[in-house]
Amino acid sequence: MAGRHVVVSNITRTDPKIVARLAEAGVSTIHEAMGRRGYAGTELRPNQADVRIAGTAVTVSSHPGDNLMIHAAVETCQPGDILVVTTTSPSTDGMFGELLATSLAARGVIGLVTGAGVRDAAELREMGFHVWSRAISAQGTVKASPGSVNVPVPLGGVLVSPGDVVVADDDGVVVVPREEAEQTAVRAAERTAKEAATRDVLRSGELGVDYYRLRTLLKDLGVQYVDQA
Amino acid sequence: MAGRHVVVSNITRTDPKIVARLAEAGVSTIHEAMGRRGYAGTELRPNQADVRIAGTAVTVSSHPGDNLMIHAAVETCQPGDILVVTTTSPSTDGMFGELLATSLAARGVIGLVTGAGVRDAAELREMGFHVWSRAISAQGTVKASPGSVNVPVPLGGVLVSPGDVVVADDDGVVVVPREEAEQTAVRAAERTAKEAATRDVLRSGELGVDYYRLRTLLKDLGVQYVDQA
Amino acid sequence: MAGRHVVVSNITRTDPKIVARLAEAGVSTIHEAMGRRGYAGTELRPNQADVRIAGTAVTVSSHPGDNLMIHAAVETCQPGDILVVTTTSPSTDGMFGELLATSLAARGVIGLVTGAGVRDAAELREMGFHVWSRAISAQGTVKASPGSVNVPVPLGGVLVSPGDVVVADDDGVVVVPREEAEQTAVRAAERTAKEAATRDVLRSGELGVDYYRLRTLLKDLGVQYVDQA
Amino acid sequence: MAGRHVVVSNITRTDPKIVARLAEAGVSTIHEAMGRRGYAGTELRPNQADVRIAGTAVTVSSHPGDNLMIHAAVETCQPGDILVVTTTSPSTDGMFGELLATSLAARGVIGLVTGAGVRDAAELREMGFHVWSRAISAQGTVKASPGSVNVPVPLGGVLVSPGDVVVADDDGVVVVPREEAEQTAVRAAERTAKEAATRDVLRSGELGVDYYRLRTLLKDLGVQYVDQA
Amino acid sequence: MAGRHVVVSNITRTDPKIVARLAEAGVSTIHEAMGRRGYAGTELRPNQADVRIAGTAVTVSSHPGDNLMIHAAVETCQPGDILVVTTTSPSTDGMFGELLATSLAARGVIGLVTGAGVRDAAELREMGFHVWSRAISAQGTVKASPGSVNVPVPLGGVLVSPGDVVVADDDGVVVVPREEAEQTAVRAAERTAKEAATRDVLRSGELGVDYYRLRTLLKDLGVQYVDQA
Amino acid sequence: MAGRHVVVSNITRTDPKIVARLAEAGVSTIHEAMGRRGYAGTELRPNQADVRIAGTAVTVSSHPGDNLMIHAAVETCQPGDILVVTTTSPSTDGMFGELLATSLAARGVIGLVTGAGVRDAAELREMGFHVWSRAISAQGTVKASPGSVNVPVPLGGVLVSPGDVVVADDDGVVVVPREEAEQTAVRAAERTAKEAATRDVLRSGELGVDYYRLRTLLKDLGVQYVDQA
Repeated sequence: MAGRHVVVSNITRTDPKIVARLAEAGVSTIHEAMGRRGYAGTELRPNQADVRIAGTAVTVSSHPGDNLMIHAAVETCQPGDILVVTTTSPSTDGMFGELLATSLAARGVIGLVTGAGVRDAAELREMGFHVWSRAISAQGTVKASPGSVNVPVPLGGVLVSPGDVVVADDDGVVVVPREEAEQTAVRAAERTAKEAATRDVLRSGELGVDYYRLRTLLKDLGVQYVDQA
Repeated sequence: MAGRHVVVSNITRTDPKIVARLAEAGVSTIHEAMGRRGYAGTELRPNQADVRIAGTAVTVSSHPGDNLMIHAAVETCQPGDILVVTTTSPSTDGMFGELLATSLAARGVIGLVTGAGVRDAAELREMGFHVWSRAISAQGTVKASPGSVNVPVPLGGVLVSPGDVVVADDDGVVVVPREEAEQTAVRAAERTAKEAATRDVLRSGELGVDYYRLRTLLKDLGVQYVDQA
Repeated sequence: MAGRHVVVSNITRTDPKIVARLAEAGVSTIHEAMGRRGYAGTELRPNQADVRIAGTAVTVSSHPGDNLMIHAAVETCQPGDILVVTTTSPSTDGMFGELLATSLAARGVIGLVTGAGVRDAAELREMGFHVWSRAISAQGTVKASPGSVNVPVPLGGVLVSPGDVVVADDDGVVVVPREEAEQTAVRAAERTAKEAATRDVLRSGELGVDYYRLRTLLKDLGVQYVDQA
Repeated sequence: MAGRHVVVSNITRTDPKIVARLAEAGVSTIHEAMGRRGYAGTELRPNQADVRIAGTAVTVSSHPGDNLMIHAAVETCQPGDILVVTTTSPSTDGMFGELLATSLAARGVIGLVTGAGVRDAAELREMGFHVWSRAISAQGTVKASPGSVNVPVPLGGVLVSPGDVVVADDDGVVVVPREEAEQTAVRAAERTAKEAATRDVLRSGELGVDYYRLRTLLKDLGVQYVDQA
Repeated sequence: MAGRHVVVSNITRTDPKIVARLAEAGVSTIHEAMGRRGYAGTELRPNQADVRIAGTAVTVSSHPGDNLMIHAAVETCQPGDILVVTTTSPSTDGMFGELLATSLAARGVIGLVTGAGVRDAAELREMGFHVWSRAISAQGTVKASPGSVNVPVPLGGVLVSPGDVVVADDDGVVVVPREEAEQTAVRAAERTAKEAATRDVLRSGELGVDYYRLRTLLKDLGVQYVDQA
Repeated sequence: MAGRHVVVSNITRTDPKIVARLAEAGVSTIHEAMGRRGYAGTELRPNQADVRIAGTAVTVSSHPGDNLMIHAAVETCQPGDILVVTTTSPSTDGMFGELLATSLAARGVIGLVTGAGVRDAAELREMGFHVWSRAISAQGTVKASPGSVNVPVPLGGVLVSPGDVVVADDDGVVVVPREEAEQTAVRAAERTAKEAATRDVLRSGELGVDYYRLRTLLKDLGVQYVDQA
């Protein structure tokens, strides 16, 4: 902890081929494939519908009401990255808008995930820059306080380290630690295949209680089948 | 109260013809026709826009973080039903997704209303399975705890009994008790007709204060008309 | 303060030409042009996407659960106005719907902004009447309690006086006091022009830390640039 | 349902002897004795510390921001009653204060439980009138809208019928339906006795995993015991 | 609006004799005496029990997460003042603690009211410095951003101007504009006297429906008196 | 990640002497001494007033609505520990009460910190077992789902690892990583000494703007000193 506020330049990213494989599965499937971990919570909502992105995390820890460190983060970004912005205490301020999105898009960054707010919601959709945030807010911010880039940050109860995989879609945001990425990609693909098979079974009308063999469990738990009184 | 956790199989449903008549009125109109009762609150939001459904309630009471009883409920469903899922304490977990929706759709169920969360939000829209929920969440659930199917359940401050009519649209969810359904259908139709007439009057420019005869009331309440200081 | 509840008839409105100039800038730009003031907060959300309106405020202060004063406000409205409805204590009730919208549209009112709830969400979108509100709610209201029209009202922490300019878009709602409107229009136009230039610079790949000259600030604040451990 | 707004005068109350037996158990114990039902939720907080009351419910359904029906309820109250006040849509207004408490105390009412707000918080404590509410608020209310007394009302997701037993302490509020009161009193007493025995065991240092025989369950669930890496 | 961020030094305060008269009435009584206005909402909670203070407002508008302007405000304070601290967007950070309280106490300031957070909650109680805040938070703040002292600020939906009277007790915070202070003091005293008389009546057992003559209103509103079915 | 659900038995704890030194400083001071990190947020509130505890973390990750893993954690506890309980998705259920507290107290555990709910609030105070929680709730839980003991867990946005130091008082909860504990103890003591000196200066009436030399900063930021208009 020599320097408290740091910008870390050369981070190790998850292999893009693994990211691409994770991109094929959705947020919920990946969360399940990780043993129901990694979900960043219900408060991070998409600014657009029916979009899924997957990329490598560049992380920002900002003072609330201050977007200085987002500017500092831009030059550490590469194509395929997703910027993950958090504040050191809760804030809904609109610390990110279409100018910063333009800057990030110029570097190939594919989206933003933030525990704070964003503005220019319509413009961001129009330019195709995808965003998940806790709030939409016009509230402006200053450029005055130090923070850090590419340190581990908490996002909605999940820890995000630089280089981790971030996948986001209509169900929210899931974070896959770099060292779990390959294994998770394998398991997610297995799960997707299995769900396709299950879907066919259920579509044919077979009941889940039979297919998943839940009748014994229900009985053991004391659930009784009765007719209406 | 011999058995605490029960699955009630043969419930009495509201006549489908009455449900069809209620489907013609919107949630707000039905709520008014019931004397401003039955509205399940502002927190149940649609997963799709510009859709209205009406059906008969099959109810589920689940432990939070557990969707076992949803599976148990499927076989009690019939075409025209709407599944109503509640948890015994607050939860936003995504206890329902496209696999369960596939299973329900195979039985003719037309939608889901839940005080908890759902996942696969995009897939549910794509397959046309309509959902109203408190949250969108990837958070997975277990199949471990007992609960009940087709018992009365509280939904956002309203009591839903199996067989009641549930109507849902962009304004939220309203619940019409089975024994009030026919009378409510009559009153809702009357109200719809009356509102059409009122709409024509107001569109012509006649003021509501005149049409509803509110000037005397305003005067009695002491409201004064003044010019700007 | 002889009469506590008043309807003020003849209010002084901001010049429509200035309103038109403000309409060209978005909510976030205007908020910045005012020195980061005037934003009514993140809780006022649009009922439609990708719409911006600007108009002059007609204000309503209502008792919670009571829409009598909205009816009283209609005749004080003119073409180009936006109705601003607040309640004297927090409420999410649906005190405004398509009948009142019809009445307002007949007078040329271009939208509604409210700290409470609205209903008929789908119908309002269909008829093109634009709304920003804290909630969508079918919950009906009474017409029983006095209130005021065209007095200053608090809206999400901002004070709105009758005749002020209200601008609303996907980022929320900003309020420009009448006496600041012209100056704000000038500054917003300047800011828009400046942002266009900045956008071109950033799109070309120049970094914000260079363009905004932030490197010295970062150094002064003690932010250190390091390689990954 | 001839008349929509009613004051029901002669309600059937739970036997005071049963209420007295329930008063000996706390809210959490009674909730468990009912099979984990009846708890009105975490938002109803006590206005005083270390107090437990138990009484029979007199229920009020009020319009938000209006306390007319509380006044109407007073004459239906008897010694040993607890007034349960709800609003037809969410409200935090201070619809109850020390004057109404004086009136209720004069009739032997022992406390108030409300899903809305109360005021005169300090005075209520000083006079020893016990209150559980969703909010403390000075916000005043009107006496203008009809409502009902002694009809079933939803309180934090639980249905309260007139004459039911209400028990409230630092853990919140639990509602025991009249027809379940005696059985619940028996079970609560059994549970209290059992907990006393368990307390002695645990105080002696015996582990709960042994006493409750949870080791097999943990093993069956796949929980592994490991040493720190 | 020449200077955007200002410290206003010489404010006009309400006469201390009027403040003293208002101090005799509680927050709820004053709110009623103002025609149910001035209450700053349920979210501002006391850090101590059973305390009432009344003083003249010195106002601070701060950037979120920054307490620089509180330091700037101290020298504008006089004995009998209450410091009112707001942030330009929502914040719960602990921007005030026992060191600032020590500084304010040294100048005779009698308390703090803030829409943000405070820390050193126990120490503040111990030293007898009274606080009403939206949150208790250890989260520290910086001294980096400009703001203003003694400009009008919004506090929970109420506007506070420097020199206004602030009264705070267990029911929350009420703000009395300077120009309304004397009249409000008169009305509050009248109301207190009237409430004392009413209290005696109600304590004797006379019903509020009779004393306030509400039976006719209930009848006119269609409320029916019925026996239990 | 061979086994997903684990109970880790032999954790490395922070040296008790360092814990004792941290216990002398309060939560806010420690948070500052760590560079404004480690604070677990405003939602974790004490169940008792004017108490401070410091101990070593034993961590529990539970399924919501399930307290099985708390039972499993007990035998891993030692005197001086604080139990830190989190759920894998948000829950307010009362998963901890006086029986578990009895068990923990028998092992010398000095308190509980939880992101979920507790019950038996009064009994816990009476027996002197100190608790910080997100909610007080009678809502009971099951013992059915696996989880982990002594793995790193997120608590209100902060990561807690087993053996870390937890300090809790009226300002909330702060977490000091084991490897930072000694350095933080040193810095906190320095800060406490410095604050004592500052307190004396401020008590004497010297202004913070002078003592902290803020006048230049205020001038540089463009804050203007003006007389009231």
